[in-house]
Amino acid sequence: MRRRQFLHGGLLALGAPAVLSTRTPELIPWIPAGKTQADGSIRLSSNENALGMAPVSREAIIQGIAEANRYPGYSRRELTQALAQKHGVSEEGIVLGNGSTEILQMGVQAFMDPNLRLVSPVPTFEDVFEYSDPHPWVDVRAVPLLPDHSHDLTRMAEETKDSDGTVLVYVCNPNNPTGSLTPVKDVEAWIRTAGENVFFLVDEAYFEFVDSGDYYSLDGIAWENPNVVVARTFSKVYGMAGMRLGYAVVHPETARRLRAFAAGPNTNHLALVAGLAGLRDATWVGKSVGSNLESRRLAYQVLDELGLEYIPSHTNFVMHRISGDLREYIDRMADAGIRVGRPFPPMLDYNRCSFGLPSEMERFAETLRDFRRKGWV
Amino acid sequence: MRRRQFLHGGLLALGAPAVLSTRTPELIPWIPAGKTQADGSIRLSSNENALGMAPVSREAIIQGIAEANRYPGYSRRELTQALAQKHGVSEEGIVLGNGSTEILQMGVQAFMDPNLRLVSPVPTFEDVFEYSDPHPWVDVRAVPLLPDHSHDLTRMAEETKDSDGTVLVYVCNPNNPTGSLTPVKDVEAWIRTAGENVFFLVDEAYFEFVDSGDYYSLDGIAWENPNVVVARTFSKVYGMAGMRLGYAVVHPETARRLRAFAAGPNTNHLALVAGLAGLRDATWVGKSVGSNLESRRLAYQVLDELGLEYIPSHTNFVMHRISGDLREYIDRMADAGIRVGRPFPPMLDYNRCSFGLPSEMERFAETLRDFRRKGWV
Repeated sequence: MRRRQFLHGGLLALGAPAVLSTRTPELIPWIPAGKTQADGSIRLSSNENALGMAPVSREAIIQGIAEANRYPGYSRRELTQALAQKHGVSEEGIVLGNGSTEILQMGVQAFMDPNLRLVSPVPTFEDVFEYSDPHPWVDVRAVPLLPDHSHDLTRMAEETKDSDGTVLVYVCNPNNPTGSLTPVKDVEAWIRTAGENVFFLVDEAYFEFVDSGDYYSLDGIAWENPNVVVARTFSKVYGMAGMRLGYAVVHPETARRLRAFAAGPNTNHLALVAGLAGLRDATWVGKSVGSNLESRRLAYQVLDELGLEYIPSHTNFVMHRISGDLREYIDRMADAGIRVGRPFPPMLDYNRCSFGLPSEMERFAETLRDFRRKGWV
Repeated sequence: MRRRQFLHGGLLALGAPAVLSTRTPELIPWIPAGKTQADGSIRLSSNENALGMAPVSREAIIQGIAEANRYPGYSRRELTQALAQKHGVSEEGIVLGNGSTEILQMGVQAFMDPNLRLVSPVPTFEDVFEYSDPHPWVDVRAVPLLPDHSHDLTRMAEETKDSDGTVLVYVCNPNNPTGSLTPVKDVEAWIRTAGENVFFLVDEAYFEFVDSGDYYSLDGIAWENPNVVVARTFSKVYGMAGMRLGYAVVHPETARRLRAFAAGPNTNHLALVAGLAGLRDATWVGKSVGSNLESRRLAYQVLDELGLEYIPSHTNFVMHRISGDLREYIDRMADAGIRVGRPFPPMLDYNRCSFGLPSEMERFAETLRDFRRKGWV
């Protein structure tokens, strides 16, 4: 799916008129968790964090308004410092982005050359494909996932061979939309032996949700190796999808290459102060992860009950089988007031269901049981 | 829309002002206008709006926090609709940007080709140069301003001749850092006769501050002509520099070309709702322009008094002569607690002073008088 379709047929079409709380009983407005859209439906469609932002982030935004008439300055420096500390790198190794998607865009643009080859798993998050679209000479090699839904690293590595130019490898781990892991140690081993013309964009958007002791960030590898970009986001566990804040951990040389493609002072001041407050709050990540685990349990429960196969999830969504037509399923869910994920070809017998609040997952479960009674799944 | 219509009729046509909560003053933190930096200094350096955002925009941000965990959807659509209405175009003719600088970046990238030539005045706003920097093959033709500090359109047009590829022309009107106008009718006449390979990026960041009946926006021309991009921003008169919100008015075909280079859902939800509220508030633009005029008067007064030549300003800053070294002047101003503009080669005997609040301009005036007493200017 191309970005235009995504924006205009997808997100915008899903968007609903504003529902603004008519009362702000305290300084911090708090539309009840499980907030519905204007038409009464719930969003299990976009891998957002239904809990919202940490209270400290909300507070930081309100305090930050008075300085939002100024170009972002100190708030960029402070967040950069905090991220450098978090990842054990120097500030030169942090590049801020307008969401982690801008980091992916900077990566595609910074590594562009007339013979660029893009090696990616499929299905995966579409943005890297979309950013290469306007460069029609890019040789895209989409490698299907293995039966266990991990990246087929062997075949991906094969596809990097015999190139006359740069090869850009996209690694999405955990992978969206499957929620599955690829063994990090295998990715790391590949990186350590790859040719000098091979660059890696490693997307760790769902890092905090991973439920595996073998998983780790490649941030340290990226800091040491100019051929690796690790992309991270505040959209998921920090509940800031609408704030547009992400970053890269990279080697200083790569940071310079990426920054040449940033859109000016590319981060919103309120996003910066909210992100900084969120980073300093040890509790919100834990609370988000805990809520997500409970929602995952409820999703697994109904899927097990109905015998609908699913891919074990290391994220805030689950890819599960449906029976019948996906478009019909999506429409029926919408009719029932539940917005679910978009199609991810070629997995058109699966639905991607984002985890909402536990109460929302109970509504999803009831709806799915109703679908079964009707013979729809 | 011509400026006169904008001020005397256009604003009223923007729609009913947003309803302000009576509790707003308590809810919205308001660092006193004329707020100083942490070190006590004032910022006359970055062409920001010292008044800050409209109260309705602040209110909209606070109300919007509860939905900022969701990817921007309805807020993008509503702002796009409001901007389309403002400019008399359809929604297909509006492209949102992460600041107008992302619009300039999209323009450079969308019109890129292996023979791209960039024709620009100098000195001017540097971002278009910066976005072409990573593409070292771009043939940059920087054309000095005329003695009246308008663009040398004749020579710029000459520089577009005999090209084997696309020519991108940057027009900054009013021009930053000089604050000067280039006759719009001459720009329009050039656009109407330019070759099909010539594209125009028209930067109207300071549109609302222009003090001339002959000035008008090229938005209508851009809507009709696929070779023209008009860039506008919420950073200046709307006081939203830290919110990163701008847009383009363009032909639908050009909109599609630009959007291919947008960084995903590139605008912050809080910026969108603040911008929408600001657009609907008929009073804030007038208040900002009025405050700016008073600050300009105070700046002119002290410059006249000290015999320091300046370029009549159609913006929220003034370029004025100093005597002596610019770096030394900037440092001495910083020592006096006043941050002024950066150097704009080749005009190194001028300082760019942004207009702060009138009270800040009085402090600037006193400092400048003190510099004169010390023989520094």
